[in-house]
Amino acid sequence: MARRLMRLLDGERPRYAVSEGEGAHWLEGSFGRWRRGGPVEGLEGFPLFVPCEPTKIVALARNYSGHAEEMGKPLPDEPIIFLKPPSALLAHGGKIALPRLAQRVDYEGELAVVIGRRAKGVRPTEAGDYILGLTCANDVTARDLQKMDAQWTRGKGFDTFCPLGPYLAMDLAPGDLLLRTWLNGELRQEARTREMVFDVGEILAYISAVMTLEPGDVILTGTPKGVGQLKPGDVVEVEIEGIGALRNSVVREGSGED
Amino acid sequence: MARRLMRLLDGERPRYAVSEGEGAHWLEGSFGRWRRGGPVEGLEGFPLFVPCEPTKIVALARNYSGHAEEMGKPLPDEPIIFLKPPSALLAHGGKIALPRLAQRVDYEGELAVVIGRRAKGVRPTEAGDYILGLTCANDVTARDLQKMDAQWTRGKGFDTFCPLGPYLAMDLAPGDLLLRTWLNGELRQEARTREMVFDVGEILAYISAVMTLEPGDVILTGTPKGVGQLKPGDVVEVEIEGIGALRNSVVREGSGED
Repeated sequence: MARRLMRLLDGERPRYAVSEGEGAHWLEGSFGRWRRGGPVEGLEGFPLFVPCEPTKIVALARNYSGHAEEMGKPLPDEPIIFLKPPSALLAHGGKIALPRLAQRVDYEGELAVVIGRRAKGVRPTEAGDYILGLTCANDVTARDLQKMDAQWTRGKGFDTFCPLGPYLAMDLAPGDLLLRTWLNGELRQEARTREMVFDVGEILAYISAVMTLEPGDVILTGTPKGVGQLKPGDVVEVEIEGIGALRNSVVREGSGED
Repeated sequence: MARRLMRLLDGERPRYAVSEGEGAHWLEGSFGRWRRGGPVEGLEGFPLFVPCEPTKIVALARNYSGHAEEMGKPLPDEPIIFLKPPSALLAHGGKIALPRLAQRVDYEGELAVVIGRRAKGVRPTEAGDYILGLTCANDVTARDLQKMDAQWTRGKGFDTFCPLGPYLAMDLAPGDLLLRTWLNGELRQEARTREMVFDVGEILAYISAVMTLEPGDVILTGTPKGVGQLKPGDVVEVEIEGIGALRNSVVREGSGED
């Protein structure tokens, strides 16, 4: 049975837990150096929280040929990387807030890789040793601001622009998973992760040649074709085979609902 | 007498301390919610560590007209922001490692602002309420990679590319400070912070309209003209009036000295 790493809200306190089969138990101690704690009683009663605490979120652009094509851009020779701030993280079930500053905000369904141990200068073939688990992400993007600004920090960096979850699948190979994004129940993106231009091993090697990756850090591996606009009231779901579905609703910033 | 916030290495453990006049005392508790601890005995014996623990580092490009000119770029209408990963942080006295992947690595002396309390949607005139202190930074940049890559994440993001320190000046107004950068004892950059295109209030308003700033987060406010290349064996110092000097030496990555 597959193991799932979860972060549950116990009152206001986020706590890690792991499930294996029917039950789940708490994890005590620091990230990745856990001790097994007691059983989680009444698992369904605990809201899911963002499943890790990254010191950085590194994302890939144009890592599926179909998406590069729909954006009218060539395929890159090397991975194109950018950073999203941790302040953009949003839990499963949380509300994506459309900023007043942006006219057009898009969903981008993606496979997220969460790092399990410190990584620098990793070889592509060793990348699996550094992965704690996989989860679903939505690389929410203010498309108008991304095009207007030379750097994407603003267009990719608003609060709530990085939904992540619902939990980490810990025993899953990233190489050939079905990824689908649903907008209000309609299928909008559908691809297999084997279609990536740079696979997870190549991505981790490229990034870790530049910067040290820390436990809990998140890598977003790029979105396939089919990106599209979000409007208030929408519900967007990113579903990945073997993981589950990350679901978020959409509100306007400052509407009182965010 | 001006207060200085320091982070000292007590063995392998970084601890916050504050000095006021001659003595210093330890700070206990979580960042920004400290209780006064005992006196620091033998202050000079403790190495200085990176003076805060940012969840993100937001930096400004082209915020002094002289530097925009030397880069052959127009002055921006709005702040140009980008992110540096926390893995790039380097303490006062640490060694900047020139990556094998880069041919040309430049120093960029800058005033750094450290956030003291959570900030979202801050007005320019209120920015001072959210600042914990000021320090010196070096926005080290692989210029060849910055020009080659559409996004600056790689060129600005290598380990050791964000020297920060030596400590935070806590009672200093950021508006008109002398900033100087010295390379091997030669003056290379000299400007006053009043020459910034966007002042600290405008910068905090712009960034906090996009993303929530957390206590400990760092804002690099841009570099004046006079940037230049670093070579192995160099010593670079960023000195700011009322703060002090951030000094770092330069080595080649993998030389055994880094």
